[in-house]
Amino acid sequence: MTESTMMYQPLLISSIFSQSVINYPAAKVISRAIEGGLVEHRYDELYQRTVALARCLQQRGVQAGDHVATLAWNTHRHLETYYAVSGIGAVVHTVNPRLFDEQIVYIINHAEDSWLLVDLSFVPLLDRIRDQLQHVEHIIILTDQAHMPAGEGYWCYESLLAEHDTELTFNWPSFDEQQAACLCYTSGTTGNPKGVMYSHRSTVLHALSSCMPNALNLSQDTVVMPVVPMYHVSAWGVPYSGILSGATLVLPGDGMDGESLYEIIDASQADLLLGVPTVWLNLLEYLRDHDRRMPSVKTIAVGGAAAPKALVEELWQDHGVYLMPLWGMTETSPLASFGSRNAYAEQLPVSERMEYQCSAGKNIWGIEFSLIDDDGQPVDRDGESSGNLNVRGHWVVDHYYRSQSSDSFTQGWFDTGDVATIDAQGCMRIVDRKKDVIKSGGEWISSIDLENAAVSHSDVREACVVGVPHAKWDERPLLFVVLTHPADLDKESIMAVLSERVAKWWLPDDIIAVDSLPHTATGKLLKHVLRDEYKDYLKS
Amino acid sequence: MTESTMMYQPLLISSIFSQSVINYPAAKVISRAIEGGLVEHRYDELYQRTVALARCLQQRGVQAGDHVATLAWNTHRHLETYYAVSGIGAVVHTVNPRLFDEQIVYIINHAEDSWLLVDLSFVPLLDRIRDQLQHVEHIIILTDQAHMPAGEGYWCYESLLAEHDTELTFNWPSFDEQQAACLCYTSGTTGNPKGVMYSHRSTVLHALSSCMPNALNLSQDTVVMPVVPMYHVSAWGVPYSGILSGATLVLPGDGMDGESLYEIIDASQADLLLGVPTVWLNLLEYLRDHDRRMPSVKTIAVGGAAAPKALVEELWQDHGVYLMPLWGMTETSPLASFGSRNAYAEQLPVSERMEYQCSAGKNIWGIEFSLIDDDGQPVDRDGESSGNLNVRGHWVVDHYYRSQSSDSFTQGWFDTGDVATIDAQGCMRIVDRKKDVIKSGGEWISSIDLENAAVSHSDVREACVVGVPHAKWDERPLLFVVLTHPADLDKESIMAVLSERVAKWWLPDDIIAVDSLPHTATGKLLKHVLRDEYKDYLKS
Repeated sequence: MTESTMMYQPLLISSIFSQSVINYPAAKVISRAIEGGLVEHRYDELYQRTVALARCLQQRGVQAGDHVATLAWNTHRHLETYYAVSGIGAVVHTVNPRLFDEQIVYIINHAEDSWLLVDLSFVPLLDRIRDQLQHVEHIIILTDQAHMPAGEGYWCYESLLAEHDTELTFNWPSFDEQQAACLCYTSGTTGNPKGVMYSHRSTVLHALSSCMPNALNLSQDTVVMPVVPMYHVSAWGVPYSGILSGATLVLPGDGMDGESLYEIIDASQADLLLGVPTVWLNLLEYLRDHDRRMPSVKTIAVGGAAAPKALVEELWQDHGVYLMPLWGMTETSPLASFGSRNAYAEQLPVSERMEYQCSAGKNIWGIEFSLIDDDGQPVDRDGESSGNLNVRGHWVVDHYYRSQSSDSFTQGWFDTGDVATIDAQGCMRIVDRKKDVIKSGGEWISSIDLENAAVSHSDVREACVVGVPHAKWDERPLLFVVLTHPADLDKESIMAVLSERVAKWWLPDDIIAVDSLPHTATGKLLKHVLRDEYKDYLKS
Repeated sequence: MTESTMMYQPLLISSIFSQSVINYPAAKVISRAIEGGLVEHRYDELYQRTVALARCLQQRGVQAGDHVATLAWNTHRHLETYYAVSGIGAVVHTVNPRLFDEQIVYIINHAEDSWLLVDLSFVPLLDRIRDQLQHVEHIIILTDQAHMPAGEGYWCYESLLAEHDTELTFNWPSFDEQQAACLCYTSGTTGNPKGVMYSHRSTVLHALSSCMPNALNLSQDTVVMPVVPMYHVSAWGVPYSGILSGATLVLPGDGMDGESLYEIIDASQADLLLGVPTVWLNLLEYLRDHDRRMPSVKTIAVGGAAAPKALVEELWQDHGVYLMPLWGMTETSPLASFGSRNAYAEQLPVSERMEYQCSAGKNIWGIEFSLIDDDGQPVDRDGESSGNLNVRGHWVVDHYYRSQSSDSFTQGWFDTGDVATIDAQGCMRIVDRKKDVIKSGGEWISSIDLENAAVSHSDVREACVVGVPHAKWDERPLLFVVLTHPADLDKESIMAVLSERVAKWWLPDDIIAVDSLPHTATGKLLKHVLRDEYKDYLKS
């Protein structure tokens, strides 16, 4: 082989901010402060604060490879932490404060975090678990002196920064681009959370790809607000891609309710928002109830779950907003596929376009999808045939952190555990989690499709479908519903609605009203609980 | 440090096409055939042909690291060659057929090319130089059997492909991403051409960045035509970035005249064109003379030289086309900075926006500019102060191929040899080549600015300004002009036009009419020839 004559520089997270601050010094970051109100910084101001934090952490003993945990909302201080910690070669471990206390303790101990940075909101949580944290030596509260909580041994973030705000430049260390930069744990429905350790290289390549027009389409003109939290999957990487592209970055802090979101959208004139469907359902409710508009918003990128069609419709018809579907997992950094507003989408009849907007979109360059059956044979990309969705690429997990299990990894591919279809346009649709799909007479029934059909009935507030053993058909579906008006279960009416939307042989064998459904701390349905409880239901 | 848990895949050129053919199988490549007419291929058809070529080259003995030269226009066959050669680990060396014969011989021998692929247009050139090629063992003519020229030992491209068109898949080899992929020689004004050996990594990162909205803004909806040739600096990387983004790629073959360009623009409905200013001046002349429009075109990206203001104006006013300035060099792969049509540009008054469109634009993430004085001290980014432009980044040259000289390389930076300014918006302007700038009384005079001012006089067809020794001022400018109507030199009238555009002390000490100016084979002015000839002009 022949060597090239080109420069080699590692792809490091520090270079995202250190280059963008020169290219876009006056670009802005607008953040809701946990102490109240909106604060605005120029990139050069925020970079200066980031440099001060990096100096401070180094001086107080943070070493390359140390793990620094955060329990924090989307704020400018959390952003500074992202860049300062990874920039000096340490690992920023974003901990999800929505998890149960024992899971948080498990995660922080498993990661062997030695530093912890905590928002004011999570000080009560911290006080509950502090005694159980085995490796944490230093705790910084992300606030100023005036708002410092009572408690022994807490450092004040703003006071620490003030010690280091005089020197303007910083030589970020250089190291191997495959070193760890950020750590995030998945919140599965079974077993302990599993850690995914992102590298500098994977993070930078994910950010570069996210900016592309086929993806988030980020530029210096974009005003982008990730409502998806920085405490889980790095807010879909927007803290990196937004800064890399010179965009105005809007961080909603703890203001996740409709009114707070409306306020910051209006103040920042945000045009691209990102988050899970429930956030937007709440926002739309607020806008309806208060007769508000959000004319600056052009696109809302939705992931975490397929968008309900009603959400796609209301955003488009009432607000002229394009709902762009995304798909990804903690294991894919997370962005893998995008339902961008392209010429193909534009030429579709509106009803078909909305179907496309309820899909998982098309994978971006750098990510490969493989659809295979249980024997590992390829499944047709015809939009009908379903198979196991495997993924590989520059920002896909290879193995879990400190785990010996190789269950999800085969021949260089990550098995997502999802069953999906891919159509001729490359558009992917999640059929179901593999463990939740119902095998009836050798055919598959999608529990997700049945649930989506059920909640279109006005009496049904929430629905859950599981397969239970059946003597003749192997498995048959049972539908559990939480009713809008309890005690009004009208099975015939619900079955009639389902019949309009799914094949006859998909109809559940029974409909059971329950007061509530079992969930994980992050809102995922615990289907195995119902499967266990009802495993003999159709045998009798 | 901590290892990440992410997959590692090398960034290889083969993965650009092998992934895009799955994501965008029906996307198109439209090419002018050298045999005549336009031909259209889907990505999947062209990929199949690329695979056949790769198999063929491997079977006929091309090894990883071998150098495969091309003398070819922008066609689908050249595109197949790009991907097949680099894909199997060999190096595609694009040779500029516009150079003098002896330079072409020097380059092919210096690169030790063992294979040569040649368009029909360049067979006469090949016949002239063939005996002098020291390492070339195999020659393929890029045509079909019916068009094969006379001559011993030439292979027919299409016949070779036909031997390998039955197997549909191919396992592209995997290797270190820093291995060489493509080779291009610069065409300087002095000395032998110098080689820049691009790596797979530099090429892929350059392609990814080029797609960004702050750069070329390439997506699956773009219909992009690089008129800039694939035989020099890889047609600004568009054969890579275009395929990566799923764009329709339009390749104009040998049809560089106005009529041919109009025909292919109209047939393909191209919306983004790329090339040097003279190409567009010719196209506009054709459109004017034949009263033609090109409504599909939205943007013309111009590099290689600053765009004349008249070009910016005519494109905008007569055709609604935005001229996007680019800047780069062979040594920067080449794209480094872009004058994209962003909100900043849109809010400028038209006259100021056109100034911006005559600049070199703003550098993209991944490329850093450093502006320093002769002592290595930073120069203010105020749009006024000029300094030596140094560059570094993921796709910038580190040293020249098989060269011991380190003249242009200092502390990790490449010295472009240009003198430039950068303004508060990050917008860069080339003042002059450092060796051409005129040092008068300790101040600098830009020969380029003076030349641009001179050609705005209707009598002046071409202008060249050089500094010659002067007893009092050290150096003073002389202006050489080629007149529209020879023998009509009106010095006063030209001086009057210059006085409106430059400071009084910049005015040349004399204006000299010449029949023609000395050029390199690629059209660069050979200023040192005039400097030598006139070195005593102001001493007498």
